[in-house]
Amino acid sequence: MPIDGSRLWRRIETLAGITDPDKPWTRRSFSQRFLEGRAWLKAEFEAAGLATSIDAGGNLVGEWAGTDPALAPIMIGSHSDTVPAGGRFDGILGVVAALEVAQSLAERGERLRHTLKVYDFLAEEPSEFGLSCIGSRAYAGKLTPDMLALKRADGLSLRDAIATVGGRPDELGTRAVAARTAAYVELHIEQGRVLEAAGRDIGVVTDIVGIRRERITVTGRADHSGTTPMAYRADALVGAAGIIQAVHAKALALQDARQPLVATIGHMVVVPNAANAVPGEVMLSLEVRSADEAAIVRFGEELLDAAQPAITALGLTARSELISHVVPTACARPIQDAMAEATGLAGYSSQPIASGAGHDGVFVALTGPIGMIFIPCRDGRSHTPEEWTEPAQAEAGTRVLAETVRLLDQRLAAPGTI
Amino acid sequence: MPIDGSRLWRRIETLAGITDPDKPWTRRSFSQRFLEGRAWLKAEFEAAGLATSIDAGGNLVGEWAGTDPALAPIMIGSHSDTVPAGGRFDGILGVVAALEVAQSLAERGERLRHTLKVYDFLAEEPSEFGLSCIGSRAYAGKLTPDMLALKRADGLSLRDAIATVGGRPDELGTRAVAARTAAYVELHIEQGRVLEAAGRDIGVVTDIVGIRRERITVTGRADHSGTTPMAYRADALVGAAGIIQAVHAKALALQDARQPLVATIGHMVVVPNAANAVPGEVMLSLEVRSADEAAIVRFGEELLDAAQPAITALGLTARSELISHVVPTACARPIQDAMAEATGLAGYSSQPIASGAGHDGVFVALTGPIGMIFIPCRDGRSHTPEEWTEPAQAEAGTRVLAETVRLLDQRLAAPGTI
Repeated sequence: MPIDGSRLWRRIETLAGITDPDKPWTRRSFSQRFLEGRAWLKAEFEAAGLATSIDAGGNLVGEWAGTDPALAPIMIGSHSDTVPAGGRFDGILGVVAALEVAQSLAERGERLRHTLKVYDFLAEEPSEFGLSCIGSRAYAGKLTPDMLALKRADGLSLRDAIATVGGRPDELGTRAVAARTAAYVELHIEQGRVLEAAGRDIGVVTDIVGIRRERITVTGRADHSGTTPMAYRADALVGAAGIIQAVHAKALALQDARQPLVATIGHMVVVPNAANAVPGEVMLSLEVRSADEAAIVRFGEELLDAAQPAITALGLTARSELISHVVPTACARPIQDAMAEATGLAGYSSQPIASGAGHDGVFVALTGPIGMIFIPCRDGRSHTPEEWTEPAQAEAGTRVLAETVRLLDQRLAAPGTI
Repeated sequence: MPIDGSRLWRRIETLAGITDPDKPWTRRSFSQRFLEGRAWLKAEFEAAGLATSIDAGGNLVGEWAGTDPALAPIMIGSHSDTVPAGGRFDGILGVVAALEVAQSLAERGERLRHTLKVYDFLAEEPSEFGLSCIGSRAYAGKLTPDMLALKRADGLSLRDAIATVGGRPDELGTRAVAARTAAYVELHIEQGRVLEAAGRDIGVVTDIVGIRRERITVTGRADHSGTTPMAYRADALVGAAGIIQAVHAKALALQDARQPLVATIGHMVVVPNAANAVPGEVMLSLEVRSADEAAIVRFGEELLDAAQPAITALGLTARSELISHVVPTACARPIQDAMAEATGLAGYSSQPIASGAGHDGVFVALTGPIGMIFIPCRDGRSHTPEEWTEPAQAEAGTRVLAETVRLLDQRLAAPGTI
């Protein structure tokens, strides 16, 4: 089944171009720029014949009614927000491809049994509220009152922010917003180098890894760097350096091709962080990802146990707090099968792949089966202005998404059954 | 010779109290708060009978004329600016003690042969322009056009900032502002634990250590933390951690009681510094201090040479740039002798001590002989709100300063001769 590749590409360029001009490519959730992108998307949805609305969780939804109103909807989409100074494809691609699929099917005169819903989920990237996947959490009834009470630096609460994008926060809380999902399928760039290195067109995602984040705080004593002899110091940064090296060595030692694990210290805060002060406290973010949930819990525990003797010898203490823990999510086997078959129908090559990045599907999976389609991106770069995928690659992914939707529409026998 | 200890202490409290209210004790150079402190000081100087002015370098000067106009001035003082969230004594003590010495001498009806000048040097602490000891550099003719062109974040140049505090930047540049100094003596808290541990009232400073600062940049490749397998990474933070540990181990190995050396990584910047990003670049400040100049140059060279194999093995590069190099400064032996004798006259105990911190004396020493008097501070804390010294300790230091000035006034036979 053909889709309109040039229309797809033009839309990617147009939506990507709605960016903070001094910092491409930036369209932060809840910002004025984000609302501009949403307004453009809404107009495109409507021009394509989709019934468009904002749901309670602030998600933009374009709906194409199916022939059987008893069936739960098939959902496709992604998100239109970006990280600061991010790329032109992460998120956008999946939203615009979903629109293209719905529009192409309708233009060909096809009718689906299931209602097809095109989603732009709200705030998939970490937002100014410190929370990601806000729209999909809301969709799954997992946006708690505590989360709604989160405030960003200017004092605005997440509750009020959701209202500013047209959501209805009072309907959220712990109640599920969506009763059930027949299937959710998302097209996304891989954000890694596996497909490119293997020369494959399509990745059929098997799992979205679990992500555990902890904050490790190393406490020593801030001192004047000039007047404190080496022997009197309790330098928190020296202890933190040992932990950074241990994380790297431990993750390397745990490499297993069948069950990859990655561990990263990506963020750190040094206090007071002055050239002439011995660091008194260092906070490290430890992030561990794997489809093996036990492994990501064990990692931090074993790490701190092993680090204690060196920390104590330096006159320091180290403690860890759990920041977040997202369990691994398996993609539904029948959706994986449909995607592999769709790839063959469209004439592309594919391979199974785990998603090392988190996605909205993690939350949507609480309401029904999910799947994800990856396409390669150049040199694996993502969350950076250099992020790139070729027009032919974007078209390939969109064609596979279209074929997958058709196969699922035929095969999904009853609500939630595949 | 008695001084008025309660007046001294009241002035310390009053000047310290001129602080940013939400962040005690903060009076950053060039800020509105700094100018408030200066206005109060000027009024106190004038009430004590000192002829008060701002010199070309923006230093506040209170002058008490001596009987022999052919003699170069004896200078005493310190600085009234602070680090952010610093202490109540660093700087202030030396300015207020100098005022007390001049006022007490005058009130007793004494006359000095030398003109006595009380100095509040401008911006001794690292300023928003990235430069410290601005006023003493200017005094010594060492404030270069390049330095005057430095800009802070809001775009203001140092040249214009000096004008805002009443200085005359057009008279600066490379010309010496002061022709000669008969002697400069500064009272300061030790900012370390040596005197407290030894139970001494007074430290007679022998040297101000040399300080060399380099910026080490470790460059790897920023990647998505979830989608980049461990083996594909070039994690700049892992390389930086090895350098941090090497600095600590190397400085510990170089300990020598006769010639102490300290080395510190106190400031670091991680890019992009996000929990879900492999760090692509890390900048570290390396600071090495010792009275042995060759040792502080050698330290950084040897460090990077030794680190190269590990850096290369991680797929990284590391380079170092010189940020600043201040040579060690010896305190003049005759001034040390006068301070030791003054300590005995006032009935206190003393010991020789090296200053691990830099001070304005480093620059003033280019114009004449200098000396420094240290008093203990509780637990060695400084550059922190917990910084503390007892009223009796502050009075002891001020009395020793007064006796030292009297001895020097008698002994300094001719301009610059001691």
